[in-house]
Amino acid sequence: MPKEKVALIGSGNWGSAIATKMGINTAKHDLFETEVQMWVFEEYVKFEDGKWVRPARGAKPPEGKTWIDEGYSPLTQVINEKHENVIYLPGIPLPPNIIAQPDIHKAVSGATMMVFVIPHNFLAPIVPKMEGAFAKNAIGISLIKGIEFEREAGKEKPILISDLLKAEMKKGIYEDWEVEMSVLMGANVANEVAKGDFAEATIGCPKKEDGEKWVKLFDTPDFKVNAIEDVAGAELCGAMKNVVALGAGFSDGLGYGGNTKAAIIRIGLKEMQKFCEVFYGDRKIKNETFLESCGVADLVTTCFGGRNRKCAEKFVTYKLAGSDKGWDVIEAEELNGQKLQGTGTCVDVMKAIKSLGKEKEFPLFAKIHGIAFEGHDPKTLVNIN
Amino acid sequence: MPKEKVALIGSGNWGSAIATKMGINTAKHDLFETEVQMWVFEEYVKFEDGKWVRPARGAKPPEGKTWIDEGYSPLTQVINEKHENVIYLPGIPLPPNIIAQPDIHKAVSGATMMVFVIPHNFLAPIVPKMEGAFAKNAIGISLIKGIEFEREAGKEKPILISDLLKAEMKKGIYEDWEVEMSVLMGANVANEVAKGDFAEATIGCPKKEDGEKWVKLFDTPDFKVNAIEDVAGAELCGAMKNVVALGAGFSDGLGYGGNTKAAIIRIGLKEMQKFCEVFYGDRKIKNETFLESCGVADLVTTCFGGRNRKCAEKFVTYKLAGSDKGWDVIEAEELNGQKLQGTGTCVDVMKAIKSLGKEKEFPLFAKIHGIAFEGHDPKTLVNIN
Repeated sequence: MPKEKVALIGSGNWGSAIATKMGINTAKHDLFETEVQMWVFEEYVKFEDGKWVRPARGAKPPEGKTWIDEGYSPLTQVINEKHENVIYLPGIPLPPNIIAQPDIHKAVSGATMMVFVIPHNFLAPIVPKMEGAFAKNAIGISLIKGIEFEREAGKEKPILISDLLKAEMKKGIYEDWEVEMSVLMGANVANEVAKGDFAEATIGCPKKEDGEKWVKLFDTPDFKVNAIEDVAGAELCGAMKNVVALGAGFSDGLGYGGNTKAAIIRIGLKEMQKFCEVFYGDRKIKNETFLESCGVADLVTTCFGGRNRKCAEKFVTYKLAGSDKGWDVIEAEELNGQKLQGTGTCVDVMKAIKSLGKEKEFPLFAKIHGIAFEGHDPKTLVNIN
Repeated sequence: MPKEKVALIGSGNWGSAIATKMGINTAKHDLFETEVQMWVFEEYVKFEDGKWVRPARGAKPPEGKTWIDEGYSPLTQVINEKHENVIYLPGIPLPPNIIAQPDIHKAVSGATMMVFVIPHNFLAPIVPKMEGAFAKNAIGISLIKGIEFEREAGKEKPILISDLLKAEMKKGIYEDWEVEMSVLMGANVANEVAKGDFAEATIGCPKKEDGEKWVKLFDTPDFKVNAIEDVAGAELCGAMKNVVALGAGFSDGLGYGGNTKAAIIRIGLKEMQKFCEVFYGDRKIKNETFLESCGVADLVTTCFGGRNRKCAEKFVTYKLAGSDKGWDVIEAEELNGQKLQGTGTCVDVMKAIKSLGKEKEFPLFAKIHGIAFEGHDPKTLVNIN
């Protein structure tokens, strides 16, 4: 039986972290070819003053020179020599069978299993370059976090990133067939997973055989992976949790105790489930999904530790002190250049719910939206009827 | 239609807190007689130096005198005059239709709905005194936390407090029928509920009609109550959560991050579910139970805020520092005279699991037991296979 050829598309923080598990497993299991091509967006790097640096953002090499002339090396070359992604996951060794490759077409050449971990605005420019390269029986998995929405007024509805990916991959010569797309989600942040801290993940897959292959590729003793046949549920949880985390942060800002916060988390989990059923009921959403790592565990982590929780707490603290600071100000103060996902998702989710006239079925989401964007008193959070 | 006559058996911290909700609802809904008799274990109290005090534990009044002679008043009298349980829930007004009654037989006289909130070692001395007093069509609900176990070696199995109560109530003249027993559980601590902080509760009931009546009795805008037809699942969650909280505390003591802790909570919830199914599978355990307040919400609160978590963190901290402090020492240091439930339950739960040879199906519980009682390295916590 021919072995599965694995390609990893993406090599940022999460891509490099997951490569540490994939490299172990392709070397260990006969199912896979040992070598994994990892597509790297090529950059130039240099070791200077004790650390690896890149040219300043937007900088160009001097007239008539290249970055190489200036003492820089391609990132792919450094990764392949040092077996370390010195920029995006410094200090963590990558397995030597993970091979950095700057050419996307070469990276996926002959691939039968493709792992996508790129920012989702990279999909449109990158995926078309794969045309004709990967095997026609290939399957894919998305580790991309986020959600998109149909923007037409009154018809807003959530779009899965895995569906966008599937649609991109169907273009060109692959038109007459579909790449089966799974997703990997859960309570797992890159740096902790890379260090080998114990974490779990959930694979949402369209069919059992795909799930079994993906589990073999990712599961290790410190990274327990479970597959469920529910792509939409697993993927939507990862976006919706950020909305609930705003509610958890409001509760913290109001000084409410553990039981109130636990109630908000629990009601949030139920509304996440309802949201999945309302918008993706035709995709067999499963109840178990919400007891998996992608459901309750990821939600708990986000509601106690995440940046959405933190900024929402600040929002209420300022409000109670009589100062109406906007989300953009809080974001700038608290996040050191990073962005909040929860606020944008909250707006889109509420539009989608309103387009179906179903606000009454989502009392907590409606309260969170009211406080975050309609000037409602934060104390209305718990008027959940 | 005759109205329901409600009796509240117990008036400690939780009993008094829940009385604040019951009093509102019996006054509001036509279903109930307005007045609620609340059985109070009679004590003597006196206002002295700005606070209410009781005689020292075990103290007797001087020869030939009573506590009344010494300037004390019966607690029931003070409650009925001040509409406040000055000892067990000071500072919170009780609705005036809650009537303190020191005589248990009178308290339940003609009662059709009985709410039990007494320490479970009071059941045997108190319940028999109710014989002949309550209505023959009466239903009951237990708010008593805890669990018992069959003690015969090799046959250990969990016994529900609600079943013990049912058995006690069947004695004597009630022999030929059964009092349908429900339970009220969830993420709700007495003082927060009494203050009116938003919290939730779950009623596990044997049939829908009972659940509807109990919801009417307890549900208020700040105390959202939901009924499910699963007594055993709801009741067992309340005991098992304390075992998982030990694991959460170990994780904190080891310095593990949010994702590891979330994984322990999640796996713990699944093992709680399995435990219910293994020992009470014949009682139609429901999957939804674990997404109710009594399941995930109470577990989250306990794993972030409770005393079991705190002592387990200390246990590991000492161990890592080379000092093997026993649970009794930590309990004395940390809990100011209160007791840990999780350790005793952990021992009993493991005996029950071992009596069926099912250790392999409960890898997390087994790890927690190994660390807590078998001298295992705390780091083995995450070797969950």
